[in-house]
Amino acid sequence: MTRLIKKLSKTRGLMPGTVVFVGEKKVDKTHIRIIDYNATEIEEKTVSSIEECFPFKEKPTITWINIDGLHEVDQIERIGRYFDIHPLILEDIANTGQRPKLDSFDHGFFIALKMLTINPESNKIQSEQFSFVVGNNFVLSFQEKIGDVLEPVRERIRKSVPRVRFMDSDYLAYTLVDAVVDGYFTVLETMSERIEAIETQLIKDPGPENLETIYEMKRELIYMRKAVWPLREVIGGLERVESEFIHDSTRVYLRDLYEHAIQVIDTVETFRDMVSGLLDIYLSSVSNKMNEVMKVLTIIATIFIPLGFLAGVYGMNFDTSASTWNLPELGMRYGYLLFWALALLIGGGLFVFFKRKKWL
Amino acid sequence: MTRLIKKLSKTRGLMPGTVVFVGEKKVDKTHIRIIDYNATEIEEKTVSSIEECFPFKEKPTITWINIDGLHEVDQIERIGRYFDIHPLILEDIANTGQRPKLDSFDHGFFIALKMLTINPESNKIQSEQFSFVVGNNFVLSFQEKIGDVLEPVRERIRKSVPRVRFMDSDYLAYTLVDAVVDGYFTVLETMSERIEAIETQLIKDPGPENLETIYEMKRELIYMRKAVWPLREVIGGLERVESEFIHDSTRVYLRDLYEHAIQVIDTVETFRDMVSGLLDIYLSSVSNKMNEVMKVLTIIATIFIPLGFLAGVYGMNFDTSASTWNLPELGMRYGYLLFWALALLIGGGLFVFFKRKKWL
Amino acid sequence: MTRLIKKLSKTRGLMPGTVVFVGEKKVDKTHIRIIDYNATEIEEKTVSSIEECFPFKEKPTITWINIDGLHEVDQIERIGRYFDIHPLILEDIANTGQRPKLDSFDHGFFIALKMLTINPESNKIQSEQFSFVVGNNFVLSFQEKIGDVLEPVRERIRKSVPRVRFMDSDYLAYTLVDAVVDGYFTVLETMSERIEAIETQLIKDPGPENLETIYEMKRELIYMRKAVWPLREVIGGLERVESEFIHDSTRVYLRDLYEHAIQVIDTVETFRDMVSGLLDIYLSSVSNKMNEVMKVLTIIATIFIPLGFLAGVYGMNFDTSASTWNLPELGMRYGYLLFWALALLIGGGLFVFFKRKKWL
Amino acid sequence: MTRLIKKLSKTRGLMPGTVVFVGEKKVDKTHIRIIDYNATEIEEKTVSSIEECFPFKEKPTITWINIDGLHEVDQIERIGRYFDIHPLILEDIANTGQRPKLDSFDHGFFIALKMLTINPESNKIQSEQFSFVVGNNFVLSFQEKIGDVLEPVRERIRKSVPRVRFMDSDYLAYTLVDAVVDGYFTVLETMSERIEAIETQLIKDPGPENLETIYEMKRELIYMRKAVWPLREVIGGLERVESEFIHDSTRVYLRDLYEHAIQVIDTVETFRDMVSGLLDIYLSSVSNKMNEVMKVLTIIATIFIPLGFLAGVYGMNFDTSASTWNLPELGMRYGYLLFWALALLIGGGLFVFFKRKKWL
Amino acid sequence: MTRLIKKLSKTRGLMPGTVVFVGEKKVDKTHIRIIDYNATEIEEKTVSSIEECFPFKEKPTITWINIDGLHEVDQIERIGRYFDIHPLILEDIANTGQRPKLDSFDHGFFIALKMLTINPESNKIQSEQFSFVVGNNFVLSFQEKIGDVLEPVRERIRKSVPRVRFMDSDYLAYTLVDAVVDGYFTVLETMSERIEAIETQLIKDPGPENLETIYEMKRELIYMRKAVWPLREVIGGLERVESEFIHDSTRVYLRDLYEHAIQVIDTVETFRDMVSGLLDIYLSSVSNKMNEVMKVLTIIATIFIPLGFLAGVYGMNFDTSASTWNLPELGMRYGYLLFWALALLIGGGLFVFFKRKKWL
Repeated sequence: MTRLIKKLSKTRGLMPGTVVFVGEKKVDKTHIRIIDYNATEIEEKTVSSIEECFPFKEKPTITWINIDGLHEVDQIERIGRYFDIHPLILEDIANTGQRPKLDSFDHGFFIALKMLTINPESNKIQSEQFSFVVGNNFVLSFQEKIGDVLEPVRERIRKSVPRVRFMDSDYLAYTLVDAVVDGYFTVLETMSERIEAIETQLIKDPGPENLETIYEMKRELIYMRKAVWPLREVIGGLERVESEFIHDSTRVYLRDLYEHAIQVIDTVETFRDMVSGLLDIYLSSVSNKMNEVMKVLTIIATIFIPLGFLAGVYGMNFDTSASTWNLPELGMRYGYLLFWALALLIGGGLFVFFKRKKWL
Repeated sequence: MTRLIKKLSKTRGLMPGTVVFVGEKKVDKTHIRIIDYNATEIEEKTVSSIEECFPFKEKPTITWINIDGLHEVDQIERIGRYFDIHPLILEDIANTGQRPKLDSFDHGFFIALKMLTINPESNKIQSEQFSFVVGNNFVLSFQEKIGDVLEPVRERIRKSVPRVRFMDSDYLAYTLVDAVVDGYFTVLETMSERIEAIETQLIKDPGPENLETIYEMKRELIYMRKAVWPLREVIGGLERVESEFIHDSTRVYLRDLYEHAIQVIDTVETFRDMVSGLLDIYLSSVSNKMNEVMKVLTIIATIFIPLGFLAGVYGMNFDTSASTWNLPELGMRYGYLLFWALALLIGGGLFVFFKRKKWL
Repeated sequence: MTRLIKKLSKTRGLMPGTVVFVGEKKVDKTHIRIIDYNATEIEEKTVSSIEECFPFKEKPTITWINIDGLHEVDQIERIGRYFDIHPLILEDIANTGQRPKLDSFDHGFFIALKMLTINPESNKIQSEQFSFVVGNNFVLSFQEKIGDVLEPVRERIRKSVPRVRFMDSDYLAYTLVDAVVDGYFTVLETMSERIEAIETQLIKDPGPENLETIYEMKRELIYMRKAVWPLREVIGGLERVESEFIHDSTRVYLRDLYEHAIQVIDTVETFRDMVSGLLDIYLSSVSNKMNEVMKVLTIIATIFIPLGFLAGVYGMNFDTSASTWNLPELGMRYGYLLFWALALLIGGGLFVFFKRKKWL
Repeated sequence: MTRLIKKLSKTRGLMPGTVVFVGEKKVDKTHIRIIDYNATEIEEKTVSSIEECFPFKEKPTITWINIDGLHEVDQIERIGRYFDIHPLILEDIANTGQRPKLDSFDHGFFIALKMLTINPESNKIQSEQFSFVVGNNFVLSFQEKIGDVLEPVRERIRKSVPRVRFMDSDYLAYTLVDAVVDGYFTVLETMSERIEAIETQLIKDPGPENLETIYEMKRELIYMRKAVWPLREVIGGLERVESEFIHDSTRVYLRDLYEHAIQVIDTVETFRDMVSGLLDIYLSSVSNKMNEVMKVLTIIATIFIPLGFLAGVYGMNFDTSASTWNLPELGMRYGYLLFWALALLIGGGLFVFFKRKKWL
Repeated sequence: MTRLIKKLSKTRGLMPGTVVFVGEKKVDKTHIRIIDYNATEIEEKTVSSIEECFPFKEKPTITWINIDGLHEVDQIERIGRYFDIHPLILEDIANTGQRPKLDSFDHGFFIALKMLTINPESNKIQSEQFSFVVGNNFVLSFQEKIGDVLEPVRERIRKSVPRVRFMDSDYLAYTLVDAVVDGYFTVLETMSERIEAIETQLIKDPGPENLETIYEMKRELIYMRKAVWPLREVIGGLERVESEFIHDSTRVYLRDLYEHAIQVIDTVETFRDMVSGLLDIYLSSVSNKMNEVMKVLTIIATIFIPLGFLAGVYGMNFDTSASTWNLPELGMRYGYLLFWALALLIGGGLFVFFKRKKWL
């Protein structure tokens, strides 16, 4: 739940544009990594102060500055001021409850996304705010903690895969979004396996614990939906944005990415449909089980209550000596055998009745 | 319920544009507060008559006149006439059942909103009509009672935070809407906590009282949805309105505010989804409980009804002297022990049966 | 039901444009009322024949001719021919099953609406077709029976409230629609009270009769929805219609009316949501009651069936003289007391068990 | 079901534009009727071969050729070739699974509709494909079998009702669609009566057979919806089509027809809402009945199981001679009366308990 | 499930445009078939290496190269390079999880579809990726395995049906999509039969296995929906695409195809509606069965528990010698007969009661 509504109280009542960290502190110290490259060279380093990033702004090379940890807002403000970023965008960067969005401005654009991963321990979705500002020859990206789904991107830059190295900051931005969307597919795959697992279990042996699991998956899908729906407009907007930053060669890739985003959204909707189908199965399996319980009760009670009455009859103390009308069966030679014969007849008759009703 | 449909009967049958107070009287006397400021000076005072506001109309400073209490409609009419506001707008101001809306006219615009807060006692949403007229250098705001979510705005003006003080009435209007939207987040947070609380309880120990709570939350969300949905068009309309009053610098903030409104709407929808999920959990927990009750009944009845029959059989009075066929067991040396052996066998057999069915 | 689908069979197979009365005859004789006014004078009279209305057509004053009763179609045809109304519109006027609509033509426009009122006896919604043709200086309105929600409009004309008297037929038309929409609010208020009443009862003491009430309200809301949804396009169309008949001063009022229509539609949707919520409460209250019934059964049966078996055991007739193994308890000094001790132990144990399960 | 998905297998794998009869053969021989008229004359005849229709193509009079029976595709192809109809349209004519559609081409347009009628025996909806091609001075219509809802149209032509006779093929086309839509109203009326009937029965005496009826109606409404939804675009398209064939005078009628189509669609949706409401009533009536059954069981069992135990106690054979502690009640003077007193007390107490719980 | 989300892990982290086979390997070796034709000649052959296709690129004849098997990506890359296809498209071809889409580029367009067939053994839907690139005089199509629904297209080309042979690659592309859509109708027909079958069974004899079938059909429909929905935009886009490749004569066919796609989508939606209706029937049939079980239990228990008590009473051992008040019935001459009379009276009374309640 807390993942859904970030504690926004801190920012409330403040002047718009005030940069306040909203979220859970996930890392001790802000961690800054710089990758600076052009077609021929690459420089990669970890710096300890924001100011060390400044010189890269003016360099003609493409610079990707990645900042892990958002709680030291003064650092975000310092770099924001130096790279000339609007205070409202800085506010969005520091607010981990930010909805995915695209903001384009004169000299670049800003993208906020949710980076979804599967927590390997709990097997549940965990979400991290990932936002970045794209300028003429730099990308400033911000994450909540160290560790992300972007390693393949770095690897490709390092390995000097031509397309990444030769292209400009717009293509780098595309690869970042692409890596995040790729991460969604991993999450969907895990979800798919979980749905399949619960499906099998529901058919084999449903229990009340399944309900909780179903509800939890429903909630996770609600959350995931919230995270991926805005992607449609973010990527669509990026494709349409009229800016010199977005080269036509990149637009082809954006169109492809847009398709992937649609596929993610589609799949989330499909999973929602399936999970609500699972709930139906669960509910009717509960009904079926109750039905079965009722049948057992009914069969046993229906056979033995009349027999109990019969036994009760012959346990009555009517005075057989007062009259031959009173319980003459008791004095009969085969009375007891007749009783059993009658009992078996009644029991057998009901057995046949239940057989016919297919309760047995 | 009464919060949903205001008693509109008073206005019915009247000529359109007749200013009639519709709602509950929440304050005894109309309370008027004036904040008048420019970049260098600030004047704040509480006046007792509407006429004292009039001189501020012509002053070049920005004047924010806030009127708490809508039941003295003649005051609203007087100030409306002086500040040249259309009678239909005055009617909307006095009607606390007014849907959130934006009306732009030649020399300004009118915004009606719902100010939502959490009643600290009942922990429920309470709603107040908040509407204001924005003119060239004034903002006339109307509330139902004293006390609001706007204190931070006043504080910022007082503390002379540059952006608020230097900017014009359009920016002041923006900060008012922003403060109201911020209030929605507080409400959503409380809702979130309540959903979480009920969720935990439903899984731990569901009871019929939960149903009432769920229904109530559903109703509150229906209400909240009604209050926030129109925000989309209000803020969107404000952003698009072609007016000299809205400066371009303010539009940036409006776009940001629009994002926030979307986030509020999204979250309300998410909560609706989750609350209907809670209902499913509740309903199936009721089924599960009935199932459990049935199982206990079935186990006990299924074991002891046949045993009762058995005991009944040996309580029968067949005349053992009449024939050796009659109840020979009664005369056996270990008859009683055999009976118990049989009873335990039956009981044990059923126990195993139930164990296998996983009813135990 | 019959209110939903008017017997349309009469018009089927006829040539389009044939004026046929479709509906229930609610009045014996067609009743014609004329209000003729300009800024200074007013004339109000009831006439007995259609022809008496004809002279008003050419008068420069505004004339409102109201016809109660639609079954005498020849009258409708005569007045239609004289006032130059298209046969298809006359057909719509006489068809009380007509969907709310706006038809604009060269020299005026036609509006059909549903006038909803609450039947004071049954407390249910009753609907009446209300349609009118607006020409340059006349309004021809048609109702099914005498008695309507338009009295306030007449009162205002009589009392010479300036705005109504000075303005033209377009403003009169607006006030008519406005009066009808005001009537919807009255209906919604009654609905609101009924929902509140049933809500209270469902929580206090739900019964099967509630189901019927809920279903009926659902049906009434379905009907009301059908009546109010088209209003959106009717009023919106009226506002946009490019016609010299609609003055700009009237358009302001139409925009306000449009807001009211949206509010009516919104509220109907909200009520539908709430009524379906009531159904959920009802259904789960039925489940809860069954649960309670089951618990009582289970508690009593679970306690007394084993005890019955125990009593049965000591009612068996094993021959105690045959062996000391047979029912030795019977001959014990405190056997009976031990039996009760055992019975209380079993009963008490189960009591504690049920207490723990919170069934007691 | 078979009505929903026509056996389309025949056309699969064939070249597009191949005319293949898809559907059920409902008539032995193709039946051709010609009505040829102008303002002054009318000629009506039944011909036996397609070729006899050919001369009418060039005549300046309006010719309506109606062909009943679609299985002799060579006839459709011959007339199609002569009247210059595109093979794809001929394919649509012969395919009774065709979705309602409008195709306009250079020298006319093609309309396919579903003609719905109520089978007088089964009281169920039956559907027939009705399609026609409208040319400059002819209408070629195709039906699956003899007998339709178009008789009133023919009657009007015969009776020389001016509007039909004087007008051109476009107006004739309009009257055909109008007659089909009128037929929908008849069907809706029957549906309305069936809904009302089942409603009454559900409230009076619900049974499992109702479920089947409800499901069947649901299915029929799904089907009807599929048949009427496309009407919106068909008629709307016809109104907007820019063609010399559609005279402005006809457009007025088309707008009216469009309204009727909307009303049909609206009503189908309303019926769907109501039928799903019926299902809710049915389901909760089943719950209510089970509740009632449970109550009877609980009342009887709860009263008599404890009493049975009591009787069992006094049926025990504890040796009263062994000790005065053993069953002293048996030897008491009024022991038996005390037993009954106790029994009545227990029974009465439970009776009061049930009364309070409102189970009685 | 696995059919829904293809294992996408292989492509994640790779550079966009990298051609990676995603899916299940369904064929051992890539199989290449070439059909090359013009109006007069046809050449059909199976080649073993991609390079053998190259000469056809420059030939003025229309060439259809069909490649079965996507796992040998180097072959796809080689042909892609030769025919000048964008790497992103090659990536889509090799990814069998690709959503149906249309990509148009300068010298042609790319279409990806799902080819659905019914697995004759399991009677379930199986899906195969079918994509093709259309160039000026060639069509390159890619499938996952040998065997498809395109045989009729080949047959038509071979049989030299004029329309196919004379027309260009755009018409060939149309016939391919048409054949795939025709395949959907076959699938829908099978679905229709399965729905009908389960419907009959649910009414005759519902069982828990039906639930599984219903859920499975629901899932298959969810999947089918995902496959057919995008068709709308694919075909619609193809119709609108402004390209010299699409001749106007082909557009007529595309419009027809679009209608068919809409019909497929409509039918899938209808089936979804019906399947969810089946679930309602199933659930209420389970309720009905439980009701029936409960009735049997209630009838038997309600009759025999009181009778058991009665028998218990006369089995009590009150000392009749101690007082004449004690069980005087036991000593009566007809006591036993009276007992039976009473028993029959009680039983008969309850029988009548149940008869009246219609439980019997």
